[in-house]
Amino acid sequence: MPKPNVREQILTTSLALLHGRGYNATSVQDITEAAGVPKGSFYNHFDSKEALGLEVVQRYTEHDAGLPAVLHEPGVAALTRLQNYFKALVDLGIGMAPDCGCLLGNFSAELSGQSPVIRQRVNAAFDEWTATLTEVVAQGQADGSVSAEIPAVELAAFMVNAWEGAVLRQKVSQQRAALDIFLNVLLGKILN
Amino acid sequence: MPKPNVREQILTTSLALLHGRGYNATSVQDITEAAGVPKGSFYNHFDSKEALGLEVVQRYTEHDAGLPAVLHEPGVAALTRLQNYFKALVDLGIGMAPDCGCLLGNFSAELSGQSPVIRQRVNAAFDEWTATLTEVVAQGQADGSVSAEIPAVELAAFMVNAWEGAVLRQKVSQQRAALDIFLNVLLGKILN
Repeated sequence: MPKPNVREQILTTSLALLHGRGYNATSVQDITEAAGVPKGSFYNHFDSKEALGLEVVQRYTEHDAGLPAVLHEPGVAALTRLQNYFKALVDLGIGMAPDCGCLLGNFSAELSGQSPVIRQRVNAAFDEWTATLTEVVAQGQADGSVSAEIPAVELAAFMVNAWEGAVLRQKVSQQRAALDIFLNVLLGKILN
Repeated sequence: MPKPNVREQILTTSLALLHGRGYNATSVQDITEAAGVPKGSFYNHFDSKEALGLEVVQRYTEHDAGLPAVLHEPGVAALTRLQNYFKALVDLGIGMAPDCGCLLGNFSAELSGQSPVIRQRVNAAFDEWTATLTEVVAQGQADGSVSAEIPAVELAAFMVNAWEGAVLRQKVSQQRAALDIFLNVLLGKILN
């Protein structure tokens, strides 16, 4: 039987702990204990807790749950793709443990001042997400289905940021209402 | 000469530190050192760091910078009051240290899972803010200046949450663009 991959165990456990509890409330010892690996093994695999934090951000952004496919579904109008994407995002958000929130938003709040490298990585993830949405918004504006009053890149950034705010409110309220309201206003006011 | 008020010094210093660095990245010793008071004096004034955290939230929500007055200015139409309020909020946000963000949003992200009492206090602050805005949105819907497609309470909650998301993006990007975009979409799409 192959040895369990200690590095992978640490990374998977860290994603859950740093997402659920936060970065500063989770010690390296918490992680190695929860992962069931020797404490000393941590620094064989990661230079620092900050280096682990960077990999956790990377891993989190790779967990896309198939959503980008919805956004680029061939033969579907851009407006419909945006509507389907955000409906799926809300369903995903409602299915999450409500006290976790979005790891990118949590790290933005907690670590922007503390870790320049994590701040830059999280910011880059938001920029990539915004660029992906900008492309689809621009397609919708080109075919006339999405209002062209606001430049596509601004509308895309607004949607990303408003989503993050809705998830934050879901987290603090422990209720799904913020996500439902996000979807209502997005579909009823922003995208029409 | 009166003795400096140790409790007040701790509270003022804590507001700055917990806002700037976050809750878990700030120790009681950090606070007493920065406040220039003996470490032992902390527990003469506060039962716990969590009790201090609750008072910091209270103090933060009292720092309203005169904004509610803009929202209730007599003789001004509801739509104009909402526009003026959010313009002032954006000016205030741009004037802030960009790596601080909103203390309510930061605590939502960092402490919702960790401290039930702080979560409830922050959530109540968001609910009060939403209720204040709901009243003005409803006035605007009654006089026909604000679109009535979305119920006032939902529109108000959406604006609060989208604002929090914009401030979070400002914090992680260290750029004001997210706040400018918030205002553009709010004035151009949401409130018209």
